Amino acid sequence: MSRYVPSEDLIARVAAGEIAAIARLISRAEAGAAEARPALSSIYRLAGRAHVVGITGVPGSGKSTLVATLAAALRAAGHKVAVVAIDPSSPYSGGSILGDRIRMSALAGDPGVYIRSMATRGAVGGMARATLDAVDILDVGGFDTIVIETVGVGQDEVEIVKASATTIVVSAPGLGDDVQAIKAGMLEIADIHVVSKADRSDANRTLADIKHMMALGLRAGVAAGWTVPVIGVSSYSGEGVELLLAAIASHGEAARTPAGDARRATIADFRLAKTAEAILLDRFTAATAPRRAALGIRLSRREADPYSLASELVETLIKDPT
Amino acid sequence: MSRYVPSEDLIARVAAGEIAAIARLISRAEAGAAEARPALSSIYRLAGRAHVVGITGVPGSGKSTLVATLAAALRAAGHKVAVVAIDPSSPYSGGSILGDRIRMSALAGDPGVYIRSMATRGAVGGMARATLDAVDILDVGGFDTIVIETVGVGQDEVEIVKASATTIVVSAPGLGDDVQAIKAGMLEIADIHVVSKADRSDANRTLADIKHMMALGLRAGVAAGWTVPVIGVSSYSGEGVELLLAAIASHGEAARTPAGDARRATIADFRLAKTAEAILLDRFTAATAPRRAALGIRLSRREADPYSLASELVETLIKDPT
Repeated sequence: MSRYVPSEDLIARVAAGEIAAIARLISRAEAGAAEARPALSSIYRLAGRAHVVGITGVPGSGKSTLVATLAAALRAAGHKVAVVAIDPSSPYSGGSILGDRIRMSALAGDPGVYIRSMATRGAVGGMARATLDAVDILDVGGFDTIVIETVGVGQDEVEIVKASATTIVVSAPGLGDDVQAIKAGMLEIADIHVVSKADRSDANRTLADIKHMMALGLRAGVAAGWTVPVIGVSSYSGEGVELLLAAIASHGEAARTPAGDARRATIADFRLAKTAEAILLDRFTAATAPRRAALGIRLSRREADPYSLASELVETLIKDPT
Repeated sequence: MSRYVPSEDLIARVAAGEIAAIARLISRAEAGAAEARPALSSIYRLAGRAHVVGITGVPGSGKSTLVATLAAALRAAGHKVAVVAIDPSSPYSGGSILGDRIRMSALAGDPGVYIRSMATRGAVGGMARATLDAVDILDVGGFDTIVIETVGVGQDEVEIVKASATTIVVSAPGLGDDVQAIKAGMLEIADIHVVSKADRSDANRTLADIKHMMALGLRAGVAAGWTVPVIGVSSYSGEGVELLLAAIASHGEAARTPAGDARRATIADFRLAKTAEAILLDRFTAATAPRRAALGIRLSRREADPYSLASELVETLIKDPT
């Protein structure tokens, strides 16, 4: 571990845009230590200025390439851009495979672009909390647009991307026999639909499929007054990139109006629930750790059942509901 | 809602293999009502006989087709087979898209095959508990082999499939430019690797890629003494199906030996943690529901931060650690 830096110093340095301080505080958020909570509380209250854009799509949808294209275009338009990528990591090794990040290499060395992969390390649920903390840290650190990139399958992953001001769902032509966004339950969460690889001849079919599905009404949850655009984008030819930038800016403006209040409150409630969940589970784990191994063995022999044991453990922790 | 059936009757009818009773108890487990817990406790202690096989792969990997092929082959070999499929469902509509299930229609009407899609309905975390309860109910109901099918992305999904005696990871040839299992962090969780669509000319390349990655040592966590087979399977030509059946049977036998004790204890501990999590979050939600909406609005205005609010709420619920 590196030298300890007091939280107050770290917050000041984050607010000054110092990358090393930003990276360090994100690492503390990721580690989930209780000691980091006061700093993250301060960060939360300072944040709220950046435009948070969630981008999701199934593996192979061209999501990472789109993120790289978008980051470059936003950068060219003068924005400071950060990308927080959630990589499905090995539950065993704890490592992330960052192959996709290589595609971002054109942006390497530009201080106006920051890319961070969040390791998920088996901390089910904690990922949402850590990712949203990282977004706030980058917000306070002066990044104008913060992209959350998640693979669009998995409940936690879908929840995280929903906790963005603007959610983009990416589909690729010719991937399997269905519209992938539907399969993964993502059609309704999109504020903007992107069909990647729009230079391919089969992209029009995918565009038409998504428009057709939307016409069928599978778009509940979308804010009133916003027409969800379906945009073909080719990272190769540049087709559609300007349209996408305009749609993102326009949705960002719409999200800032009072019409966006309900969504912001829902996101905040999700955040509260996830944070409480993390605190509760920490407390539970700490309180029960000494007994867990023995209980696991009894359970595996079916000498006891998980409901009785779990209830017993929970009762030792929780106050009587009086 | 249908007529209320007392739990004791329901358990006896499940144990007699009555499909309506099995379906009803799975629905109760899925709904997560506290009233179902005593019945599920009894079921847990009665279960443990069936071979639980987890099958996972990214969307488009041919996982559902493989499950159908495997179910038919096991059935032909005289097994009673159940499939519990976790469909990513819409977080808005609560519905599941069951397109894949249509592929199972060849098995429809056979009482020795039972197929159940678990709706995930936004209950993050609760899905693992409900799925494993469903597996136990089917086990007590007399099914010999129970297949858990999950899309192999998402932390909860990976955790669930790991909670099987035998875990199969499916990859398809020609899906994107990487081995999908690696991208999704699934290489290490496989007890058996299957490459689907083995009749295709590019399947050999995918088989070789997986073998190569395994030779590089990306296979921690696999039980000592078990060599992970990499099997090409074509649901179209039938190639590899017998090999796969033999590998599943052989791994199932290995898993029943004392060498499998540690894994069973780990699975049981995961189950205990998930069950406790569900109980804790239920209690938390019930205790805080009246205050949540107002807190969400304060949070969304950044007048408060999630850590302080969540800690406050948790403290009202939890005993002092004395």
